[in-house]
Amino acid sequence: MAKSADRYFGLHEQKIIEEGFNPDYSLESESIFTLSNEHMGIRGYFEEGGVNSLRGSYLGGVYEAQPHRPESNYRGFVDRTHYMITTADCLSTKLTVAGEELNLTACSFSNYYRELDLSNGLLLRRFTWYTARAGKIDVVLERLISMDRPDQLVQRITLTALDMDATVMLNMGIDGNIVHQTTQRCQWNDVSNEHQAPDDTLVLRTATTDMNVRYRLLTQCDGTLSPMRTHRGIDHTYSFTLKQNKTSIASRTVSVQVARSGENLPEAQPFADFATVLDENTRHWHAFWAQSDVEIQGDLQNQQGVRYCLFQLHSTYRGLDMRNNIGAKGLTGESYNGHAFWDTETYCLPFYLFSEPKAAKGLLMFRYYTLPEAMKRAAKLDLKGACYPIATLDGTEACTLWQHSSLQMQPSTSVAYAIQTYAELTDDQEFLKREGAEMLVEIARYLLSRGGWNEQGFGFYGVMGPDEFHMMVNNDFYTNYLGKKSMIYAANVIDRLTPKELERLIEKSSLSADEPIAWRKAADQMILLHGENDVFEQHEGYFSLPHTDIQAIAREEFPLYDHWSYDRIYRTDMLKQPAVLMAMFLYPDDFTDAQKEANYAYYEPRCIHESSLSPSVHAIIASGLGRHEEALDFFGFATRLDLDNYNRNTREGLHMSSVAAAWLTIVEGFGGVRFTGGNLSIAPWLPEGWTKLSFSLRIKDSILRAKINATDVTLSCEGSPLRLAVYGKPLTIGETPVSCITERMLA
Amino acid sequence: MAKSADRYFGLHEQKIIEEGFNPDYSLESESIFTLSNEHMGIRGYFEEGGVNSLRGSYLGGVYEAQPHRPESNYRGFVDRTHYMITTADCLSTKLTVAGEELNLTACSFSNYYRELDLSNGLLLRRFTWYTARAGKIDVVLERLISMDRPDQLVQRITLTALDMDATVMLNMGIDGNIVHQTTQRCQWNDVSNEHQAPDDTLVLRTATTDMNVRYRLLTQCDGTLSPMRTHRGIDHTYSFTLKQNKTSIASRTVSVQVARSGENLPEAQPFADFATVLDENTRHWHAFWAQSDVEIQGDLQNQQGVRYCLFQLHSTYRGLDMRNNIGAKGLTGESYNGHAFWDTETYCLPFYLFSEPKAAKGLLMFRYYTLPEAMKRAAKLDLKGACYPIATLDGTEACTLWQHSSLQMQPSTSVAYAIQTYAELTDDQEFLKREGAEMLVEIARYLLSRGGWNEQGFGFYGVMGPDEFHMMVNNDFYTNYLGKKSMIYAANVIDRLTPKELERLIEKSSLSADEPIAWRKAADQMILLHGENDVFEQHEGYFSLPHTDIQAIAREEFPLYDHWSYDRIYRTDMLKQPAVLMAMFLYPDDFTDAQKEANYAYYEPRCIHESSLSPSVHAIIASGLGRHEEALDFFGFATRLDLDNYNRNTREGLHMSSVAAAWLTIVEGFGGVRFTGGNLSIAPWLPEGWTKLSFSLRIKDSILRAKINATDVTLSCEGSPLRLAVYGKPLTIGETPVSCITERMLA
Repeated sequence: MAKSADRYFGLHEQKIIEEGFNPDYSLESESIFTLSNEHMGIRGYFEEGGVNSLRGSYLGGVYEAQPHRPESNYRGFVDRTHYMITTADCLSTKLTVAGEELNLTACSFSNYYRELDLSNGLLLRRFTWYTARAGKIDVVLERLISMDRPDQLVQRITLTALDMDATVMLNMGIDGNIVHQTTQRCQWNDVSNEHQAPDDTLVLRTATTDMNVRYRLLTQCDGTLSPMRTHRGIDHTYSFTLKQNKTSIASRTVSVQVARSGENLPEAQPFADFATVLDENTRHWHAFWAQSDVEIQGDLQNQQGVRYCLFQLHSTYRGLDMRNNIGAKGLTGESYNGHAFWDTETYCLPFYLFSEPKAAKGLLMFRYYTLPEAMKRAAKLDLKGACYPIATLDGTEACTLWQHSSLQMQPSTSVAYAIQTYAELTDDQEFLKREGAEMLVEIARYLLSRGGWNEQGFGFYGVMGPDEFHMMVNNDFYTNYLGKKSMIYAANVIDRLTPKELERLIEKSSLSADEPIAWRKAADQMILLHGENDVFEQHEGYFSLPHTDIQAIAREEFPLYDHWSYDRIYRTDMLKQPAVLMAMFLYPDDFTDAQKEANYAYYEPRCIHESSLSPSVHAIIASGLGRHEEALDFFGFATRLDLDNYNRNTREGLHMSSVAAAWLTIVEGFGGVRFTGGNLSIAPWLPEGWTKLSFSLRIKDSILRAKINATDVTLSCEGSPLRLAVYGKPLTIGETPVSCITERMLA
Repeated sequence: MAKSADRYFGLHEQKIIEEGFNPDYSLESESIFTLSNEHMGIRGYFEEGGVNSLRGSYLGGVYEAQPHRPESNYRGFVDRTHYMITTADCLSTKLTVAGEELNLTACSFSNYYRELDLSNGLLLRRFTWYTARAGKIDVVLERLISMDRPDQLVQRITLTALDMDATVMLNMGIDGNIVHQTTQRCQWNDVSNEHQAPDDTLVLRTATTDMNVRYRLLTQCDGTLSPMRTHRGIDHTYSFTLKQNKTSIASRTVSVQVARSGENLPEAQPFADFATVLDENTRHWHAFWAQSDVEIQGDLQNQQGVRYCLFQLHSTYRGLDMRNNIGAKGLTGESYNGHAFWDTETYCLPFYLFSEPKAAKGLLMFRYYTLPEAMKRAAKLDLKGACYPIATLDGTEACTLWQHSSLQMQPSTSVAYAIQTYAELTDDQEFLKREGAEMLVEIARYLLSRGGWNEQGFGFYGVMGPDEFHMMVNNDFYTNYLGKKSMIYAANVIDRLTPKELERLIEKSSLSADEPIAWRKAADQMILLHGENDVFEQHEGYFSLPHTDIQAIAREEFPLYDHWSYDRIYRTDMLKQPAVLMAMFLYPDDFTDAQKEANYAYYEPRCIHESSLSPSVHAIIASGLGRHEEALDFFGFATRLDLDNYNRNTREGLHMSSVAAAWLTIVEGFGGVRFTGGNLSIAPWLPEGWTKLSFSLRIKDSILRAKINATDVTLSCEGSPLRLAVYGKPLTIGETPVSCITERMLA
């Protein structure tokens, strides 16, 4: 089951480099060179086309819906699904020199070089084109997505004639005819007329969701302009003569606004040219890195890898619009339909919590904004309160497999977990007592109505826990434990409300006084199955399941979903991903080291890590247990999963949760950072070969900086001094760096 | 949850009578008046149309296939399904008198009367038609489906002009344009040309399964004939003058042959006219009733009901073609797609075993004929041997719900059970040692490969037992018990083979010597979960499930599948239909009365009987336990479920398994008949109000006749004397009737 790297890009501390062009990697490169800013994402495709391409441009929260005819008419089955669609190509470019059109598959060229600069988000491609009739032309193509003006992207094309004068025709356009690969359809209607759009403006509308997108194209070039409107498109064509040894620069700014059904299109932000955006982006990213950088010395691969992960995390989501969430592939590809999963709360949230609280809040506000949908879903399942979807773009359940959408409770308990973590870390009492409390009430109601009582106590029956290789199980440890914690927390939050705050909540949620009592009762009597020697039973009957020797499964049989009969996966003790360990990962203080050790030792050998998120949880727990070698094994390709195409599907887009998990493994695993119940602790160890690891954590108005080398941990704090435990010892850290001896070295 | 009768038909010992026509019951009447002979079935629709109708004619084993796109691409999901289709209407009739077309919805009429005579299968309808321009006409329409010439049906139309001469135009045709209601399509291609069919012959072909059906129409009438071929049809139109007070008789014979893909159309049987078929049918049914009648005195409703059930059982299936099975609706409607379920072996088989061994063998040969399909299905599920389908017409799995088609093992164990029961009752060693042994080997292989081992022994994991309200359960008592019995029986049968027979089996099945050893080992160590006080646990964890008070469920919430969220049904101790009790019903000698009593007392109150088959099993077990009042409650509407439309869906067709269950309840319940391990026993009791119950059982070459009245049980035997136990006392019964005092009266 070992995965192997398919290294293509050059190593660099803060750049991703492609030196020389190999068309076999064009799709992978497109994914890796995706630029995004939450509002929009554009894969790193060649503007001029000509190579194998998934010409994907996406807009956050822009999707189509589709009625779904379920396998049967049973109640509660999902009968409408939805998916992120491909939007217009804003970088459409055609370059013709002396009658020959640029196409790197057909033309001769040399000195090909492409780089993504993580310090400013500039994607640059250059090469020398050997034209047939006009000699050599140096071509440089640059693009940026603006971080400060999210509705804008800019492109710059620089041409230099090396050998002779050349007649040039440069077409810069917007092309709304791009086909969504999965459905093989272009989903857009051109409604520019209806909007009385001027010639430089295009308005497209989705077919089922009634979303309008307005594109405006500004171009600049020394030449004769012939503008043209086409169906679903705009074309600006410039003709000019490029003098020998002279350089010509053309550029464009495209602005893109979205209006959901019933909304008016928002005003465009003031237009910026290329240089302005480059300048703004440089400052924006500088500030980001100053606060959020993770520095690794002695391991350039991981240094590049983790910075790439951080770059993509901040690009994909930063809390601009509470109607956006983080899709499994971000805005980098169609796969997973753009849906957000419970990974958002469990894997992605920590990074934002410790670096961009506004983004963290945005993710929670998405759940608040979609609370009505979660309540409708619960009602559809004959339940009370709010049942959050397993996969969604708009808050409705998009997963058409009933066994997931009806049986998996972790999306809802994850929201409760996220509210608690966010509130403890930020002390955002206003959010907690209003939106937070409202969500907690509905989640607790859902939990209580979904569970059942027997003589042993309260539990959940007929569920699928996070280990998706067991279905319709009873008293799943993770589900029950998270249910217990969620209900207690909901009741605790209500207890701490002032009479006025409580009154408001009662008005909003029709909360009755006996409800928190009922939650506490269920939580107190929650069934948690203990086995012998501190091992919790994953669910009722798990210990009696026939054993699968996962080492004996041939490598060709993975992924099992593709090679095994569906039901065969579900009847042994084999796990897809952690469940009991997942609960310990989320609530580390609730379990002793002995319990963690016992459950790690029991469950890890039964887990096949079919989810790419599984290794990070194991790495973090192994780190905490001093199982450093195993932690490093699990860390393995974490930072470079997509860069080195370990899963061989980078072409489809980036694995956003895995990108987040890489940060998590370094900070919570190697850094030993924990934040539970309002208490911060840190207990780092340095992986073999690394000479230094440094990272920063934002906690309220303070920034804690940690530097770890082979012998010392040095901590300092900007802003208010912080109290924390270092290797279990309480310390107060202020501006003056404090050093301690590292206690936990590589075994 | 009590069901109520919607009585429409008149009571009679051996007729079903409709006196006066109520168009609101036209669909129900169509179902009730269905005639069939296994080869074909025709609903009792008005030949001339004009009323609300499901104009259904069906041919045994004639169906269409359809690719199915499953909810997901998981392996083992069914990707092709199939369904019985509507075939041509062979009774198409148009009667025009003095320019006015007969239509009972639009015309005036009196003296409407319809009856189905169970003594000969004659369906007769008569009325006096008040024509607008030719006075009153007596109309009699009669039809028969031939039992001795299964490819033929006959119709007779008798007209008498009461008031004056009348000009008549009578059209008798075959209409292949009938639309299949479920798909809203006519599925037939007219390929008569291709077959160079003469003018009186029509050949139709199915679109996907390449089946050819040849219809030949012979008509007789004193008048001028204008024959016509139409697309998918034949029309014979006769014109004549009907003299006042004279009677004119027109008649038709239609013959219908079927050729499956790759087969030639068989020769038609010699044509018979109406009188011949009536005569033959009268003799056929006389012989049937002489052997298989159940007589009930003192209860005309049940007398009529049970005879109607017997009539339909023999009409629907009698072993003509081993490629036919018994659809859930027989040949009486489209609903359930004509599919046969495991009900065939568990509910329908006993009637045939005790009355028509050839039919019983036919049902088993169907499973043998489709063994290759069952083996392919097992392979698709990564399993060995043969996995029989949960729903099928042709042996392939037609059920597209993976949770049923992948998790329910009872179709396969039912086949093993049926082989054993058949072999023990008929002593058909040749079948047992050849086809039977082959099937048993593959079933045992399937079972062994589907199960798993743990420290407690062998069991089945991730199954859905016969109680379909629990899914993905482990060590389901029924599944494990039937698995155990099936594997032991397979090994026992192999043990009893002669070396030559064994050699043949090894050649056929590549059986290795260690296989039966492995089956016995698994069977010996089969996990059977015992609770306290003789109660078996339905499956692992069942006893800990939250309790549902089924009495508290409002009547409007039934059927639960329509009113409850799907997953909600699956997480309490509520049962849909018997599971532990079902095992006890199938293997009554394996369990003590104390065990039966304990399990009945425990499980019955938890069962909502959502399957219409559930009450009969409970009635039979309650009978055996002397719980006579409860047995009668469960018997309730058994014989009249469709006649009195208790489920309010008789319009869709008859409930064939329920029809069989009615017989089962009378003979095995009230009659106390058991046949296990080669031993026959009988222990009757007489329900309150009944003055006499008599039935017959065919056992090998003997026919046992039992007459029960309030005080005595009188037994006699035609053929070889029979040894049996009466109320537990061994007796030998010969031709001379033997009487004993009834021991078990109504409590």
